[in-house]
Amino acid sequence: MTWSIYLSGEIHSDWRERIVAGAEAAGLDVEFSAPVTHHEASDDCGAAILGAEADKVWHDRKGAQLNAIRTRTLLEQADIVVVRFGDKYRQWNAAFDAGYAAALGTPIIVLHPPEHGHALKEVDAAALAVAETPEQVVACLAYVVAGTLPGYTDRARAAE
Amino acid sequence: MTWSIYLSGEIHSDWRERIVAGAEAAGLDVEFSAPVTHHEASDDCGAAILGAEADKVWHDRKGAQLNAIRTRTLLEQADIVVVRFGDKYRQWNAAFDAGYAAALGTPIIVLHPPEHGHALKEVDAAALAVAETPEQVVACLAYVVAGTLPGYTDRARAAE
Amino acid sequence: MTWSIYLSGEIHSDWRERIVAGAEAAGLDVEFSAPVTHHEASDDCGAAILGAEADKVWHDRKGAQLNAIRTRTLLEQADIVVVRFGDKYRQWNAAFDAGYAAALGTPIIVLHPPEHGHALKEVDAAALAVAETPEQVVACLAYVVAGTLPGYTDRARAAE
Amino acid sequence: MTWSIYLSGEIHSDWRERIVAGAEAAGLDVEFSAPVTHHEASDDCGAAILGAEADKVWHDRKGAQLNAIRTRTLLEQADIVVVRFGDKYRQWNAAFDAGYAAALGTPIIVLHPPEHGHALKEVDAAALAVAETPEQVVACLAYVVAGTLPGYTDRARAAE
Amino acid sequence: MTWSIYLSGEIHSDWRERIVAGAEAAGLDVEFSAPVTHHEASDDCGAAILGAEADKVWHDRKGAQLNAIRTRTLLEQADIVVVRFGDKYRQWNAAFDAGYAAALGTPIIVLHPPEHGHALKEVDAAALAVAETPEQVVACLAYVVAGTLPGYTDRARAAE
Amino acid sequence: MTWSIYLSGEIHSDWRERIVAGAEAAGLDVEFSAPVTHHEASDDCGAAILGAEADKVWHDRKGAQLNAIRTRTLLEQADIVVVRFGDKYRQWNAAFDAGYAAALGTPIIVLHPPEHGHALKEVDAAALAVAETPEQVVACLAYVVAGTLPGYTDRARAAE
Amino acid sequence: MTWSIYLSGEIHSDWRERIVAGAEAAGLDVEFSAPVTHHEASDDCGAAILGAEADKVWHDRKGAQLNAIRTRTLLEQADIVVVRFGDKYRQWNAAFDAGYAAALGTPIIVLHPPEHGHALKEVDAAALAVAETPEQVVACLAYVVAGTLPGYTDRARAAE
Amino acid sequence: MTWSIYLSGEIHSDWRERIVAGAEAAGLDVEFSAPVTHHEASDDCGAAILGAEADKVWHDRKGAQLNAIRTRTLLEQADIVVVRFGDKYRQWNAAFDAGYAAALGTPIIVLHPPEHGHALKEVDAAALAVAETPEQVVACLAYVVAGTLPGYTDRARAAE
Repeated sequence: MTWSIYLSGEIHSDWRERIVAGAEAAGLDVEFSAPVTHHEASDDCGAAILGAEADKVWHDRKGAQLNAIRTRTLLEQADIVVVRFGDKYRQWNAAFDAGYAAALGTPIIVLHPPEHGHALKEVDAAALAVAETPEQVVACLAYVVAGTLPGYTDRARAAE
Repeated sequence: MTWSIYLSGEIHSDWRERIVAGAEAAGLDVEFSAPVTHHEASDDCGAAILGAEADKVWHDRKGAQLNAIRTRTLLEQADIVVVRFGDKYRQWNAAFDAGYAAALGTPIIVLHPPEHGHALKEVDAAALAVAETPEQVVACLAYVVAGTLPGYTDRARAAE
Repeated sequence: MTWSIYLSGEIHSDWRERIVAGAEAAGLDVEFSAPVTHHEASDDCGAAILGAEADKVWHDRKGAQLNAIRTRTLLEQADIVVVRFGDKYRQWNAAFDAGYAAALGTPIIVLHPPEHGHALKEVDAAALAVAETPEQVVACLAYVVAGTLPGYTDRARAAE
Repeated sequence: MTWSIYLSGEIHSDWRERIVAGAEAAGLDVEFSAPVTHHEASDDCGAAILGAEADKVWHDRKGAQLNAIRTRTLLEQADIVVVRFGDKYRQWNAAFDAGYAAALGTPIIVLHPPEHGHALKEVDAAALAVAETPEQVVACLAYVVAGTLPGYTDRARAAE
Repeated sequence: MTWSIYLSGEIHSDWRERIVAGAEAAGLDVEFSAPVTHHEASDDCGAAILGAEADKVWHDRKGAQLNAIRTRTLLEQADIVVVRFGDKYRQWNAAFDAGYAAALGTPIIVLHPPEHGHALKEVDAAALAVAETPEQVVACLAYVVAGTLPGYTDRARAAE
Repeated sequence: MTWSIYLSGEIHSDWRERIVAGAEAAGLDVEFSAPVTHHEASDDCGAAILGAEADKVWHDRKGAQLNAIRTRTLLEQADIVVVRFGDKYRQWNAAFDAGYAAALGTPIIVLHPPEHGHALKEVDAAALAVAETPEQVVACLAYVVAGTLPGYTDRARAAE
Repeated sequence: MTWSIYLSGEIHSDWRERIVAGAEAAGLDVEFSAPVTHHEASDDCGAAILGAEADKVWHDRKGAQLNAIRTRTLLEQADIVVVRFGDKYRQWNAAFDAGYAAALGTPIIVLHPPEHGHALKEVDAAALAVAETPEQVVACLAYVVAGTLPGYTDRARAAE
Repeated sequence: MTWSIYLSGEIHSDWRERIVAGAEAAGLDVEFSAPVTHHEASDDCGAAILGAEADKVWHDRKGAQLNAIRTRTLLEQADIVVVRFGDKYRQWNAAFDAGYAAALGTPIIVLHPPEHGHALKEVDAAALAVAETPEQVVACLAYVVAGTLPGYTDRARAAE
């Protein structure tokens, strides 16, 4: 089977690219999805397509709802949800996605710097893996999807 | 992934054709489905296949139930449901489909002239996007499915 | 058990009162719920509580969403949903509720004048009973809830 | 019916008390639930009961999981979830709860200062009401639960 | 807890009365429900309330649908479904109820004469108990609900 | 999409072959599934593979459970369930499958001779179409799957 | 609310009594349920009620299925499932119940001696709390249900 | 359709290989999945990827949770779950998987030596087939998936 991985959260660093590249290098049978990561497009999409709003609240609402069509659909179809919390911004939407995935029973991998551990303890407690680097996420995926663990499964194969 | 879009509602204008053509022109990875839009076939199908009825009520019942096999199956398998309200007819079946999709948690895009806004406020409140033209629906799909927003994502790409 | 009956739809006639009174007279073990039937309160509740809106669209949206907290909760907890279509207004929200109940698998009793039969054929086809008068709805409830059918179960009892 | 209201989020102000008091004053048929709001107990419960941990990560994990037994159970049984975002702290757990409730389809009322509107736009877009004060939440509950709206339903009654 | 037991199937013998009496004598905390067992009322209810039909097919349809409001609601709320197959009639509705309960995951107790074993093997295979007499059903309920088994739990108590 | 059709019920006539041949002739995008229709294999499979049983009851149980792995899986994955009742045998398993499909909300087409109408009224009331011949089932499928109705959609096409 | 706690697993020590007594002493609003803990009754119930079996396999099957009516119903209705693994016996049924609860999303508290930690690591990983003594389970319940934590919430109250 | 078969349980004998080889030899349309069967990798994966733990409990927890991402996903997507209990080890995780599958309603085939019958009676009672050898499992799959039963369906074909 091809595993569907949804990459939720922070959009200001290259963590998605590193995970995608790592998975490709490892030859994993996965397909990735994500929210629209173009920040301005994500903010303005609703008003740009469905009509401008004088009030910032409704400008935001229209955009957030249009994004929700994409994000909830992809999130609901994912086999694994990776949720990234970065240093900047409050990223309540990342935590929202984590809660959404938890309620669906979808396995969650959380990715955040260790110093956020206490503030994110409820999210971490709902996850099946807590990683600090995108490379750890790739290693998790390689183990979960392909059953490979460097230093173990490669030696075993050599020994056979 | 290929997104499944169910086009529910009014059958007396070319709104479906315009959405399908627009999505095709945009190269979107979508597949559309719809109820049988041949009005007379839709009315008479039950009696034509399963036997004539003297009473109009049962003539209608047989047809509506046979149509329901198609419409509910396609509606339940859709990733997005577009519901169109036109100027003529009461189109209770369009509102019925919207309620059905809402209970399933399927994202809804409503398409209607602005003057119906008040009468359709409960339906609009259950939708994630409210459009006035088929072209806006296509733009929504392009953003949701492919992440493209004219004036934003095309510039960004040019800038990279 | 106490049966929960949700009375959805038209708010401009006394059909709810007649059903409630009839059920009470029959001593049925039922409790009724309904949307807020005060028309102006229902329209303005969102803006009145959460802040006025310059744009009618958002005035309506706020109100419709606040009403949805009530209506969906009560509708989801109902054992039976009665949906009334009257002569005036398009009542798309009644059809929306019917679709919602149908997707939940909740039994539906539709109440409408016979002349709307063709326009409502999809809704009727999703219902388990189609009535023309509130008194018929009461008789349905008496049979379903208490197992009584005048001319049948009363005679049987007399005969025993 | 008695409505169950879960009060999620910020624990450093008296917003819960104000809502509970307001609902009581209004005579609403509601019962409230909440996470354990004693901050230190909430942090240390796991280690205090199930054994101390040398590593802060596991101290937090034990506590967060024990809290989850309470919070998810109450949240899943709630008819309405009120989620409060305050000025201090990142409150990712509040957003997590909102996502959890959204996936369950439970109606959400969000409570936050207007200046957080943009950062919370995804959460607001998943809510059916966005309030700024606990008193607005009480007014929402009064309307939703009891159908009362000052200036409307009281006048109507007077007029009848 | 009070256990809800739905008694489905044959309506021409006193098996329901024997189970209810036996459970009462045993002081079990159970409540029983059943379809309307008045044969003629069950056949004619739809037409009697909602209007006569010239065609027997629609006469039957109206009645069967009205009965379904009662039977499916009670069946879905049952903790245990007892399905009785008698000697007369084909009782496809009993098998239908058994399939319905099986799909819901509700425990089924089947009650039938041993000579129907082969014909009912698919139904029996979906049941958790297959009984031949109403008294065996009562004994099953006593064990399941109250944990009592004559010759075992009464002796144990005496020995303590 | 390819529609999955499960053909449940009677195994002593050629009704499955006629439906499959008719669908193939019509070029419908469907795939059919069915229980194992080899009568002796169906009866003996459990004992033949998992060990003989002295008692007929357990011989039947083993077989019925092994068959259930196949039938429930296919039935649960079907878009439409066709249930056939023939003249011979009681076919409680056909009614069981109909109840199972009804609880899943899967559209049902019932196929039986008109003289069984009264005995099957509960099953018919749960179906969306009631046919008398396999050819009618094929016509239903052609309309539902492909939207074609002889005398209607072919003329319309000619007229365009 | 009254919390329902299902006590699954080992039946050869007094751990259930200690939890029940502890919860009662703490005045917790809980109700406990459990499988039938009379060992011989649990083994023989099926054959004793429904007829003796020559073959031990079917003797066991009848009993296990009858017990399943009780255990699955209570387990499915529980808010929290406590699963106890003792020193003797393999107790596969305890692990089975844990897996069942995990699939339902019901919070699990596991109770076992620390030396079983490695063998039970998959079960522990699915639990929200891992306890070694019944008294720890009581303390967990007191915190979860009543929000009390000795040394924390009692001091806080004293300070107020 | 291609059937997905999840092979859960014991990892110290060649039972998986024998089933896979047998299914391949029989030309069955199946795909198999399994947990990572490399014992040391399975134990150490969490710590190896996400960081070493001083405490064995957390070493095990990290590993078990990472394995759970794989096992629950594959188990939930399986059409049939085969659960193997061997002679060594307690294999609580096999029983856990069986309970998980049972709650999902997925058909279970249990594979164990006959002497474990009594200890596994709850698991066997939740299964649709109980086998003693991998070859019996292959024969079950051949019958369920392809409808072939040696001595029956091959003769029938010869006779036609």
